[in-house]
Amino acid sequence: MNSHSPGEEEFLKNYDASLYERISVAVDLLTFTVEDDCLKILMVRRGEHPFSGCLALPGVFVGKEETLDEAAERGIFEETGLSGIYYEQLYTWGALDRDPRTRVISVSYMNLVSRDKLSFRAGQRTTEAVLLPVRDLLDENEEIAFDHRRIIEYALWRLRNKVEYTDIAFHLVPEEFTLPELQRVYEIILGKPLFKANFRKKVAPMIEETDHYTSGEAHRPSRYYRRKMSEE
Amino acid sequence: MNSHSPGEEEFLKNYDASLYERISVAVDLLTFTVEDDCLKILMVRRGEHPFSGCLALPGVFVGKEETLDEAAERGIFEETGLSGIYYEQLYTWGALDRDPRTRVISVSYMNLVSRDKLSFRAGQRTTEAVLLPVRDLLDENEEIAFDHRRIIEYALWRLRNKVEYTDIAFHLVPEEFTLPELQRVYEIILGKPLFKANFRKKVAPMIEETDHYTSGEAHRPSRYYRRKMSEE
Repeated sequence: MNSHSPGEEEFLKNYDASLYERISVAVDLLTFTVEDDCLKILMVRRGEHPFSGCLALPGVFVGKEETLDEAAERGIFEETGLSGIYYEQLYTWGALDRDPRTRVISVSYMNLVSRDKLSFRAGQRTTEAVLLPVRDLLDENEEIAFDHRRIIEYALWRLRNKVEYTDIAFHLVPEEFTLPELQRVYEIILGKPLFKANFRKKVAPMIEETDHYTSGEAHRPSRYYRRKMSEE
Repeated sequence: MNSHSPGEEEFLKNYDASLYERISVAVDLLTFTVEDDCLKILMVRRGEHPFSGCLALPGVFVGKEETLDEAAERGIFEETGLSGIYYEQLYTWGALDRDPRTRVISVSYMNLVSRDKLSFRAGQRTTEAVLLPVRDLLDENEEIAFDHRRIIEYALWRLRNKVEYTDIAFHLVPEEFTLPELQRVYEIILGKPLFKANFRKKVAPMIEETDHYTSGEAHRPSRYYRRKMSEE
């Protein structure tokens, strides 16, 4: 029990939380992966009102007894069957009319997973879960539920920024990867080709060699690398 | 009225928002300025339970009919009398026990203001509003209310990062500034001296000359500059 000053305990005992307005809070999940030379995002086809039949980001309402991170982990598990994948909180969306049901504030989370780990299944509330190329999704005229188009655009912008100055892209390759594979993931996210020499110089401090090599290919075997864990 | 599929209108009419748990949502304000060669933050001395007598970040509960940004603007105005200052949403905090009254999720906003604009007044809920050096505040053992110490540490980390690769520091100098003044603001935030030549090269694309010069000083007058507005 917190008690910091005379009378605080009494105050808290009599505190009426209903004095302040309360708001529904949801977590929306932006789960990115790279597949077929494309950056893809996990979307659901809504099977319920509102926006029934539209594509939407998977999401869950935040329960009174769970933190935002716990809600995100629960949502990720419900949609993908996975736990322990990389996630980070991105931004919180609070427009008044973003959900026609009621006022819902949404905390968006970006999750990155290498395709080999992902075997998603549809959540109970949805009729379909799909991995869609982000570019196609944004370019097409199909309606996306709620304000999710804007949230996806924002997440894509953040992902591109963070790829430039962090090692976040390593979450999108298998644990062991060749340098051409890694470079291709960077290029896919950034949407532009990179010079091999510059790229290798940039990632060199973040990787370490393994003793494994590609095999069964016509050309010279490529060495597999893995992400160097920081000492922290 | 949104209506996207058969039956949606009926569904929304009968929707019972109380089916989902709702949570109190607050906005906490990190208002930074530079004064007396120090990075300072606006804090309030709480005059009410809980944490009565402790230093805390100013904040407001988010009303049902206001967006997060509107709540932040209202809070900034209540605490400083200012509108139109720079702010950005930082992060949303959702630990279960962060507020002893009830579950409160807090969306933190970082606000930057040049000291010449700031003439803050205490808000109604507080007995005292003070500008405190961030370093002293974090180094001292004084108790800071709620999880606000952690929020301040996070904001300081974000501010330092953003100063390196954006023009955010310009919000902390007057509209017209000399290059030594600007460099000092960068140094204060980053906590380290910068080489003049490197610094000038870095900020050159972001500034433009004015026709004004410092006067009344013993040494040669310095030219005033202003921030170059981007063409977007």
